[in-house]
Amino acid sequence: MTKPRIGIINVTGYVGIELARLLSQHPDVELVSVTGRSAAGQKLRQAFPHLSNIDLTIEAKLGDVDLAFSAMPHQESAREVIPLLNCGIKIIDMSADFRLKDVGEYQRWYGAAHPAPHLLNQAVYGIPELQRNKIAEAQLVANPGCYPTCSILALAPALTAGIIGPDIIIDAKSGVSGAGRSLKLGSLFSEVDEDVTAYSLDGHRHLPEIQQEASALCSGETPKITFVPHLMPMTRGMLSACYVNLVLEKLPGKNPQEALHRLYEDYYADETFVKIVDAPPHTKHTLGSNYCHIYPTWDPRTGHFIVISCIDNLGKGAAGQGIQNMNLMLGLPETTALMAPAIFP
Amino acid sequence: MTKPRIGIINVTGYVGIELARLLSQHPDVELVSVTGRSAAGQKLRQAFPHLSNIDLTIEAKLGDVDLAFSAMPHQESAREVIPLLNCGIKIIDMSADFRLKDVGEYQRWYGAAHPAPHLLNQAVYGIPELQRNKIAEAQLVANPGCYPTCSILALAPALTAGIIGPDIIIDAKSGVSGAGRSLKLGSLFSEVDEDVTAYSLDGHRHLPEIQQEASALCSGETPKITFVPHLMPMTRGMLSACYVNLVLEKLPGKNPQEALHRLYEDYYADETFVKIVDAPPHTKHTLGSNYCHIYPTWDPRTGHFIVISCIDNLGKGAAGQGIQNMNLMLGLPETTALMAPAIFP
Amino acid sequence: MTKPRIGIINVTGYVGIELARLLSQHPDVELVSVTGRSAAGQKLRQAFPHLSNIDLTIEAKLGDVDLAFSAMPHQESAREVIPLLNCGIKIIDMSADFRLKDVGEYQRWYGAAHPAPHLLNQAVYGIPELQRNKIAEAQLVANPGCYPTCSILALAPALTAGIIGPDIIIDAKSGVSGAGRSLKLGSLFSEVDEDVTAYSLDGHRHLPEIQQEASALCSGETPKITFVPHLMPMTRGMLSACYVNLVLEKLPGKNPQEALHRLYEDYYADETFVKIVDAPPHTKHTLGSNYCHIYPTWDPRTGHFIVISCIDNLGKGAAGQGIQNMNLMLGLPETTALMAPAIFP
Amino acid sequence: MTKPRIGIINVTGYVGIELARLLSQHPDVELVSVTGRSAAGQKLRQAFPHLSNIDLTIEAKLGDVDLAFSAMPHQESAREVIPLLNCGIKIIDMSADFRLKDVGEYQRWYGAAHPAPHLLNQAVYGIPELQRNKIAEAQLVANPGCYPTCSILALAPALTAGIIGPDIIIDAKSGVSGAGRSLKLGSLFSEVDEDVTAYSLDGHRHLPEIQQEASALCSGETPKITFVPHLMPMTRGMLSACYVNLVLEKLPGKNPQEALHRLYEDYYADETFVKIVDAPPHTKHTLGSNYCHIYPTWDPRTGHFIVISCIDNLGKGAAGQGIQNMNLMLGLPETTALMAPAIFP
Repeated sequence: MTKPRIGIINVTGYVGIELARLLSQHPDVELVSVTGRSAAGQKLRQAFPHLSNIDLTIEAKLGDVDLAFSAMPHQESAREVIPLLNCGIKIIDMSADFRLKDVGEYQRWYGAAHPAPHLLNQAVYGIPELQRNKIAEAQLVANPGCYPTCSILALAPALTAGIIGPDIIIDAKSGVSGAGRSLKLGSLFSEVDEDVTAYSLDGHRHLPEIQQEASALCSGETPKITFVPHLMPMTRGMLSACYVNLVLEKLPGKNPQEALHRLYEDYYADETFVKIVDAPPHTKHTLGSNYCHIYPTWDPRTGHFIVISCIDNLGKGAAGQGIQNMNLMLGLPETTALMAPAIFP
Repeated sequence: MTKPRIGIINVTGYVGIELARLLSQHPDVELVSVTGRSAAGQKLRQAFPHLSNIDLTIEAKLGDVDLAFSAMPHQESAREVIPLLNCGIKIIDMSADFRLKDVGEYQRWYGAAHPAPHLLNQAVYGIPELQRNKIAEAQLVANPGCYPTCSILALAPALTAGIIGPDIIIDAKSGVSGAGRSLKLGSLFSEVDEDVTAYSLDGHRHLPEIQQEASALCSGETPKITFVPHLMPMTRGMLSACYVNLVLEKLPGKNPQEALHRLYEDYYADETFVKIVDAPPHTKHTLGSNYCHIYPTWDPRTGHFIVISCIDNLGKGAAGQGIQNMNLMLGLPETTALMAPAIFP
Repeated sequence: MTKPRIGIINVTGYVGIELARLLSQHPDVELVSVTGRSAAGQKLRQAFPHLSNIDLTIEAKLGDVDLAFSAMPHQESAREVIPLLNCGIKIIDMSADFRLKDVGEYQRWYGAAHPAPHLLNQAVYGIPELQRNKIAEAQLVANPGCYPTCSILALAPALTAGIIGPDIIIDAKSGVSGAGRSLKLGSLFSEVDEDVTAYSLDGHRHLPEIQQEASALCSGETPKITFVPHLMPMTRGMLSACYVNLVLEKLPGKNPQEALHRLYEDYYADETFVKIVDAPPHTKHTLGSNYCHIYPTWDPRTGHFIVISCIDNLGKGAAGQGIQNMNLMLGLPETTALMAPAIFP
Repeated sequence: MTKPRIGIINVTGYVGIELARLLSQHPDVELVSVTGRSAAGQKLRQAFPHLSNIDLTIEAKLGDVDLAFSAMPHQESAREVIPLLNCGIKIIDMSADFRLKDVGEYQRWYGAAHPAPHLLNQAVYGIPELQRNKIAEAQLVANPGCYPTCSILALAPALTAGIIGPDIIIDAKSGVSGAGRSLKLGSLFSEVDEDVTAYSLDGHRHLPEIQQEASALCSGETPKITFVPHLMPMTRGMLSACYVNLVLEKLPGKNPQEALHRLYEDYYADETFVKIVDAPPHTKHTLGSNYCHIYPTWDPRTGHFIVISCIDNLGKGAAGQGIQNMNLMLGLPETTALMAPAIFP
């Protein structure tokens, strides 16, 4: 039996090479084609010496594949994948193009008309822990943003249980690799090193994703989300602190801390990649991995529920989750090629 | 006329050497004595080669001084300064011993009886922007913690104006130097590098300080403060994001963003070290300096008031503010030796 | 057939947990016992949350194993493994105890008599690329130091070919994790961050190892090695620059650069983990992996041969090489569990 | 008496803003004009919030000044300063345009004809410790590169004393700010962080500067210099390790280590900014300052003389030295505005 053939469109960004790294160790699929624009014609291992175990040339045009990841920027990504979908190829889109269900929201946040509104309905928002079955049947999966993945996993049990008020504050911290490999002053080492800053206070493009998915999970009042991302002087890693009001009377038992911990443990009991931890998590405990660590806690002084979650923004926040979605779409065991622990220290 | 003679008790920690660095450039005082325990007998410049312009030996016992900084740990600090106060020496205590006015709070948070409760009344909590006159007349100043300085300066205009609700969430981020120079696993490079984590979710010792000072500034309902500190992979720098409900009807005009900016500009109009900025501030823009940058903003989606502030935790968050207090206590121009811009990049 | 049972003595240091991380993904052996001193009784995954896929308790005493890694400090390590060797257990000693063949040298550099001089003869210095057959038959392997591994792999082809003069200068740069997890002032984040320094200029303990192995490889005059290690502000990674005089007339052809490249390519042609690269290598291209990248070059201005090599000090420089040695000792394919590419970026 | 008026051409790079930072604290000169290309029209303090104490607008064209720093790239810099020199304005050129005395060498290394060969004769290579008098009388000073400053200061006493052989190996390590503020892939945080690499092994442009100045200092055989620069994961700081053969019989006394230390102490006895230290220096002990720390040592095993030196590449390696040159050219005390100790930690 031949293995499914996998391709990566635009392999030369940080998400693209992380997909290649993970696929190179996958026993049940074969990475057969990678594309890039400026680097076309070069050996992948020459452009990226850490990928010395992959013997592929970066191509200008994707070869024959059964499933393709698109790591193109938004707008371009949709245009790139439409013909592939028409050929029956399965697509995991790493860009934002198929994440928002509402065309108006897309236009508002991305400043351009959606290139393929007819596909929005069939696209599945790919957080396996929340949409496992739909992903398994999808031809087109929208791989979520890193901030939304980290926040939604942190909030899902509480939202589903209906134990929190609608006012949600998310203070999120990300490593610089989230800004990608393009040349920006704000990504220069000398600017970012020894620096912490908040950004996009007038609205980050991941906010509507968080809003959409949080609303879908919530049975009660629509959540009202304040989202402030911060840039950290590190390459990988993302940590979110979510502050919400707890509706104490909806929690069973007399010990809110225990009840919250149990609620979270139960919700993710069957999940391999989500760990409920007993102490505030460290991003470094997820570095290079597909794991998400979540720490739910209750502040008896103020009654606030505080949940801290962390992931590797390029792992569970991007490429790792992409591979997890791929495994589901291809009928493979979901955890294949994703069980590697984090690199620590 | 002879210059006032200054001493530093326990110069060998990060706050101690930062005081020495600043004092070595002060034209109107003379650093005459520095003490240390294990390093006693060593030349200061041998233990700290960056202080090559200071020709002092680390002593076991403080020499004759007019004003002393104590950079001892809490409990020990109080015991150390009592005899000095009795001799008429002015004291700036960098520890937490004289910050809390309530002896019970002190005992609750520091796990021991206060060593000198009779002095609490005369000690002044030393944020010059808020207590300039009292500091100028004090013999004993409690130099505030770094987190309280950063948060209180961010909230003071809004608290004083009575435009915010009582529920205050402070998500704060600190460089590692805030943990001091003592040997702890959690301060090792390999543990902290490429890592972000929250800590002290069950209560950080700076919370009661913030609570005390915020309450004092607030005319209305006592603030209810949620405070979550985070550790950043950098040496210096602190950034706070404060999330509060805005009481819109108390703001003048129709543009809350503008009104907030004006309120903050006006409040700090005469202050040299507090800058209201037009974009989210970067900790690195304050590195090595005594400046505090504040960015007040309003989220029209949720109605939240968000104020971001940053300082150098060893500068305005510790030694810089200490020198500012010293200048006031000695009747010197407040900004002397503190005007150096930040080191950037 | 049952899998070989593996143990780790003193799992709680950085080398210990890196061994555990690699063993947890090894399909053909079973990690059955890990020991620690202060952490005994704790779950491994509680002490090290990134190892959530390992369900072992840290023990005070090693259980039944077929092969044990000792990650104890020198002196203690020898004492720990002697009884195990007597029971027929295979040992890979990560400490320095069995690396030097000359008891006098050991005493000179480690300041104490060797605890088991009778074992020195049977111990094999474990660089698989140089001693594959001996390692496969050994009961006791001395796992090399990180600096020696990086330097010896860089120099071996030139030393063996006899094309270089005896005067060898090695300027080496290491990440901080090489200093281990013990509490030292010089390992604190605030001391190391934004800092570069040379150290051990009066003699680093890895020098006699390098001297011993370089001498063994060299057919001509005994090499005279100058070795200066430097500490870098990063957690993992090691880079060596070796400067030597080239004996041009011993190089074939007229293009020294090409001849050197070919010599190196040929020497390591069958090696999976040693890559001869076309541009100065980056430590980050080996981070978390077992690879060594080597760049040989010739300076036509001065006639010097310069070879730059890099590894992950905890990977090929310690635990990765340990697993490679284990695979050989157990008759398993040498590359098992070691093929993961580096984490980049 | 009016203060000399100072200008900075191209203030918006890292050298430009470091000059501005230092000049803003200089009591005896006045920074009156700063230029920039893309940022022209902006307030300096808006583009660089850390310079809040400077009230200047970035201009397209330099105003009236008595002395100008040019922080333009090479080629452009020469063209920019020619008309200013003709007007009698004193110039400190931070670029490489006037550093090399040999027009052919300039063309070889910079790939273009020299824009103003007639000025090379009058330009003084500005290391004050070596050319104090000439600088004081110069109208045009070529401010040295960071690598040459660090290396030449380290080698000058030994070269002058004639105690070393001609074969000199310089292994140098630099922070990323040395690469400037322009957008390059190799300067991105995610590429540089946790990475060490050598570069420019086929010849770095600072090599001919080092060669020229070393040759000038050396009475004997022309030095043959091997120079390998490395990039460090830090913003500021530079450390050089120089390896040379010691001509033992030319050293007085029987203790080479002592003799070397004394030779260096004597050579720099009157210098404020060069410190001979007793232990391997740390770049961080010079961060933000104009100091250079030098550690000369002798390896009795191999007979090599090893000298380690470090500076802040933007301080003594660029802007600090520029101010020192300016002070000399204006007849001001040489150390004015430069005595600030390093920021540590």
